[in-house]
Amino acid sequence: MALRLIGLDPGLRRTGWGVIEVDGSNLVHVASGEVASTVSLPLAERLSQLFDALSGVIEAFGPAEAAVEETFVNKNPSSTLKLGQARGAVMLAPAQAGIPVAEYPANLIKKSLVGNGHADKRQVQTMVSVLLPGAKPKSADASDALAIAICHAHHRRPPNVRYDFPKKVRV
Amino acid sequence: MALRLIGLDPGLRRTGWGVIEVDGSNLVHVASGEVASTVSLPLAERLSQLFDALSGVIEAFGPAEAAVEETFVNKNPSSTLKLGQARGAVMLAPAQAGIPVAEYPANLIKKSLVGNGHADKRQVQTMVSVLLPGAKPKSADASDALAIAICHAHHRRPPNVRYDFPKKVRV
Repeated sequence: MALRLIGLDPGLRRTGWGVIEVDGSNLVHVASGEVASTVSLPLAERLSQLFDALSGVIEAFGPAEAAVEETFVNKNPSSTLKLGQARGAVMLAPAQAGIPVAEYPANLIKKSLVGNGHADKRQVQTMVSVLLPGAKPKSADASDALAIAICHAHHRRPPNVRYDFPKKVRV
Repeated sequence: MALRLIGLDPGLRRTGWGVIEVDGSNLVHVASGEVASTVSLPLAERLSQLFDALSGVIEAFGPAEAAVEETFVNKNPSSTLKLGQARGAVMLAPAQAGIPVAEYPANLIKKSLVGNGHADKRQVQTMVSVLLPGAKPKSADASDALAIAICHAHHRRPPNVRYDFPKKVRV
């Protein structure tokens, strides 16, 4: 039976999401897009908007597992804090729905798709289209979220086995 | 009628909370404590533990408004990211319960309690006990959360007025 996975690319302003189906070694695009928060609202309400919208996506598509990229730690501490807050709210959506959430370093995601941990964004987007024929992600965030879902399809452990991928992986 | 406020001091390992009642210029301690996450669990599950526990506290004590400290931006980016993630999950608990969440800079909280934006932690704790007679917060995190709630009692705007305290305040 096909397994549904959701990839999430967190950001406070916009968070990308992508749902795929895995059937043996076959990957199929189900849906992808992005959810946004209203810049003029207080932070807590913006986090709530992201959480509500992603909870709706999860309810609609029923993925069994979720994956997020390990957030890039920015040199600007206030950007890092902002991204961290968004990431906390984004990861809570699957967690509150009882779905396990795996984390992958950015270079492992690139290596999974392009074979090179230092591939550029465009190469990753091209490979998303190659690996998911017919997928036409509407934004770069949606495409990045699909890349994360594909990486999870390649690296996930069988269910009931504790996911304990090492935090720092050399690729 | 007395108004209930909750202060929150976010941390991934432990988050302090403190509920007070404001009746005119009178402040009363209602309850305070901390919620914790299990260090050995995956991040998403730890965020879920904090969110669930705080949602329970909010349901039990029914505060009308919430306040958090603006997180200290650490020099260590990975600590900042960790704190940001916890803060995102912590702020979501009141937001999902429909409660507005105000944010205050650390030095404004100190100035509210001690009259000095550079007061040390012990001075703040002493003033929490003075301003909330009978309160015996069980931990430093609970006491810090009560300090945040007291600051909010002093600086909150009347309901239905958009909270727009300037991000950067000189105190």
